[in-house]
Amino acid sequence: MQSMPNHAPSITPIKADLMVCPRWIIPVEPAGVVLEDHALIINRGEIVDLLPREAAAQRYVADTIETLPEHVLIPGLINTHTHAGMTLMRGIADDQPLKTWLEEWIWPLESRWVSTEMVRDGTLLACAEMLLSGMTTFNDMYFFPEAAAEAVDQSGIRANLGILAFDVPTAYGHGADDYLTRGLATRDALRNHPRLSFMLAPHAPYTVSDATFDKVATLAAQTGLGIHIHAHETQHEVDDSLHQYGERPLERLERLGILGPQTLAVHAVALNDADITLMAKHNVQVAHCPVANLKLGSGIARTTALNAAGINIGIGTDGAAGNNRLDLLSETRLAGLLAKGTQQDPGLFPAHSLIYMATLGGARALGLQDQIGSLTIGKRADLCAIALDNATTLPVFDPASQIIHAAGREHVTHVWVDGQCVVKKKHLTEISHGEIYAKAKTWENRFRG
Amino acid sequence: MQSMPNHAPSITPIKADLMVCPRWIIPVEPAGVVLEDHALIINRGEIVDLLPREAAAQRYVADTIETLPEHVLIPGLINTHTHAGMTLMRGIADDQPLKTWLEEWIWPLESRWVSTEMVRDGTLLACAEMLLSGMTTFNDMYFFPEAAAEAVDQSGIRANLGILAFDVPTAYGHGADDYLTRGLATRDALRNHPRLSFMLAPHAPYTVSDATFDKVATLAAQTGLGIHIHAHETQHEVDDSLHQYGERPLERLERLGILGPQTLAVHAVALNDADITLMAKHNVQVAHCPVANLKLGSGIARTTALNAAGINIGIGTDGAAGNNRLDLLSETRLAGLLAKGTQQDPGLFPAHSLIYMATLGGARALGLQDQIGSLTIGKRADLCAIALDNATTLPVFDPASQIIHAAGREHVTHVWVDGQCVVKKKHLTEISHGEIYAKAKTWENRFRG
Repeated sequence: MQSMPNHAPSITPIKADLMVCPRWIIPVEPAGVVLEDHALIINRGEIVDLLPREAAAQRYVADTIETLPEHVLIPGLINTHTHAGMTLMRGIADDQPLKTWLEEWIWPLESRWVSTEMVRDGTLLACAEMLLSGMTTFNDMYFFPEAAAEAVDQSGIRANLGILAFDVPTAYGHGADDYLTRGLATRDALRNHPRLSFMLAPHAPYTVSDATFDKVATLAAQTGLGIHIHAHETQHEVDDSLHQYGERPLERLERLGILGPQTLAVHAVALNDADITLMAKHNVQVAHCPVANLKLGSGIARTTALNAAGINIGIGTDGAAGNNRLDLLSETRLAGLLAKGTQQDPGLFPAHSLIYMATLGGARALGLQDQIGSLTIGKRADLCAIALDNATTLPVFDPASQIIHAAGREHVTHVWVDGQCVVKKKHLTEISHGEIYAKAKTWENRFRG
Repeated sequence: MQSMPNHAPSITPIKADLMVCPRWIIPVEPAGVVLEDHALIINRGEIVDLLPREAAAQRYVADTIETLPEHVLIPGLINTHTHAGMTLMRGIADDQPLKTWLEEWIWPLESRWVSTEMVRDGTLLACAEMLLSGMTTFNDMYFFPEAAAEAVDQSGIRANLGILAFDVPTAYGHGADDYLTRGLATRDALRNHPRLSFMLAPHAPYTVSDATFDKVATLAAQTGLGIHIHAHETQHEVDDSLHQYGERPLERLERLGILGPQTLAVHAVALNDADITLMAKHNVQVAHCPVANLKLGSGIARTTALNAAGINIGIGTDGAAGNNRLDLLSETRLAGLLAKGTQQDPGLFPAHSLIYMATLGGARALGLQDQIGSLTIGKRADLCAIALDNATTLPVFDPASQIIHAAGREHVTHVWVDGQCVVKKKHLTEISHGEIYAKAKTWENRFRG
C-alpha cells in the first residue's frame, strides 16, 4: 500500500450490498442512543457496520445507497401477537361483548370459511398492512400456518408461526394431536426458510386440557421450541379456572411445566401480585396488547408492576378482527400512555424504553434477540425508516420522542427485511395493491353472504 | 314547461358550486345513518341538498364535481381544546412530571419567546396539521389571538379563539384586565370574519382570582359569549382549591356564576359524583382530552358517568407541546377504548356515538351547533373525506366502525371548510409545505439556543 505524505493512507473500499444514510439512527442497543449522520452497512442481509457517514463513504462501496435526509432509522417493529388470517374480518362485529363477538360472529364465520385460501389471503393482507406500518416480524397464532407461510414468503416479511394446539375439532384438524402433528410437519417442511421460525401455540388455558399441555411441555423439551399462549386475558378466565381446577391459570401452567423463559404469555391483564411473582420466577415473557384489552373490555395490563418485576414485555396488535388495526407504533404509544395515566406518573416508560419494547423487547419475547431487534453488527438487517419532515412531526427536538408521541405509521417510508427493501417510499415492493384489494373485496362479499 | 308522454318532466337544473359524490355519507344528524351513493350539494359555502346521486345528477349542475368512489364523507372534525401556538414546542420536554414540564420548560420558553410572530407561525403549523388530519374547526386558548387569527385566515380553517384571562403578567399583557381588553378588541376587529368566533377564556380556577371571574361572568352576561376554561384536570388542583378556598373548583365556579350551558370545562378528570351532578344541573359542556390526561399523568376522565348524566362531550387534542399530536381521529378512538376498557364493557360508546362526539358533540360544546357539526341542509359546508380502499382499511363491513377503529388521519384525503377545498388529495391548498418547514426549523433553532 502506498503511503503519501500529508494524506490518509489509501485503502481499497469494502464492497457491500446496501448503505443506508438517514439523518438519525436509533440502534436500540446500546440503550438510549441517537446517532446523527451515521450510516448502516448491509451485506447479504446482515448488518456489517454502523459508523459515521464520512467514514462509511471512505471505507465502503455499496451497490445501493439510500439517503434519507429527514428520517430516523430504527430496527423493524416486532408484533409479538396476532392472528393474521383474521384480517379479512376487520370490523365485522364491533362494539359487541366478547362472548357475543366470538360465539355469534367469529366462530360461526371461521367454522364456515377457514381454509388454506382464507388464511393465505388474510395473512397477505395483514403482511401488507404490517409492512406499510413498519413491522418486519410478526408472531402468529392461527389455523393453516402453511398457508400463512406462503403469504410470508411472498411479502418478504419475517414471521414466527404457531404450531397450534387446543381441544376442539375445526376445519384445520380433528383435535390437539392432529393440530400438533400438522404444525410440526409444517415446521419441518419450512425449517430452512430464512424468514420463518416457529413456536408451539397452545391456544389458552381455557381451551387446552391438562393432557394436551403435557404433550406441549414434552414437545417443548424435545425440540427447544418456545410456547405462545393467551393467558389471564380477563378476570372471567381466572375465575373460571379457579372454579374448574382450583388454581389460577398461571398456577396450573406452572404445575404442567408450561412456564419458562421461552414462554410468551399474551395479554396478562388479570394478574395479582402472586401471578407477577410467579411469572418473574420463571422469566416468562409478556405480549402486551393494550388496544385489544381495552376494546374487548378486558382492562389494562399492569405493565409498571411487570416491568418492576424484571419481566420482559413486547407489544402485540392482536388480530385485526378485534383491534381493528395492525399498527404497532400506535399500540406502543398507547402502552406508554396507559402506564403514565393509570399510575399518574408521566415519567414512566420514557420514549427510548417504548422503542425498546417495540423492537428488542419483542425479539426477546420471541427468542429471536440474537438475530433481530437492534441495529447491531451481526444481526439481520430488519429496518424501518420514519420521515420526520412533515407538518405533523415538526419541529424535531428529540427523534425518539417524535417516533413515539408524534409520528404514526403514516410516516414510515422504507422497510427492509433481511436486507431486502420491501417498502420503498411508502409502497410495497412485493405485493400489488390490486391483488390485496381484489382479495379483500372477494372475502368481504363472501362473509356478507 | 313541456310535458312529454312516457318521460319524466324535464326541469331546469339548479346551479351549485360543488357536488361531492362519495361512496358513503355519514351525516351524523340523524344519528346512526350511513347513506350510500348519495351526493352533497354545496352553494356559497352552505349545504343546500343531500340526496341520492342519480337524483342529484338530474336536479343540479355544479361548477365542481368531486367523485370519491372509495371514500366516506363526514362532517369536519371539531377540536374542542388546543393551544395552537405551542405546536412549535412539540416534544421539547417529554416524559417529565407536569410541574417540571411547566416550570422548567414551557413557562421559561414562553416567557422568553411568546410574541405575535411565534403565535402566528405556531398556529399556522397547527392549522396545517389539523387540516391534514381532518379537522375543520378548533377551539384555541393562547396568547395573541390576533396573531392566531392571521394563521386561521391564511389556512382556510375555522376557529373559535379565546379571550384570555388570568392573573399573571406576560409578554401579552399586564394582567386580567389587560388581557380581557385586548381579547375583546381582537373580537371586535374580527367579528365579521366568516370563519372566526370567540369565547371568554379564563385559564383555570387555580390561575384566576374571584375578582377576575366576576368580570368574566359579567362580560359573558353582557356579550352572550361562552366560557372556555380548564377545570378539574388533576386531583392536585381539586385538593389545592379545597385548601385555599374550602371549595372544589366546580363549586367555586358555580358560586361565581361561571357555570352554564355555554361553559366548556376542559379535561374534567378529577370528578366525584357531586361534581358530575353539579355539571349536569348547569348543562356544562366537556372537552375530553384523553391523550393529554394520560401523558401528563392526570388520569382518565369518567366519560361513561358524564354521558349517563346527559352531559355533552366533545373531543380535544390539547396542545402539541404536551400531546404531541393534533389528531382528533386517534383521540376519539382512544376516548372509546378507554371507556370500554375501564368499564369492562365493549358495548360502550359505539362507533356512531364517537363520530358524534368528534363532530356535532364538539359543535355543541362550542355553541356552534346551528352552523356546523353535521351534514344538514342549511349548515356551513365543513367536510372531511376519508379513503377506505387501503391495505390498512380493507375490507369494509361498516364505514362508521372503520373510521373509528381502523382508519387514521393518514386516510383523510379531502377537506372543505365553508365550502372551500383546503385539503385536496392529501395536500394543503392554502399553505405551502416549504413555508411550514422553514418556520418550524427557525423556531426549533431558537428554542434550542
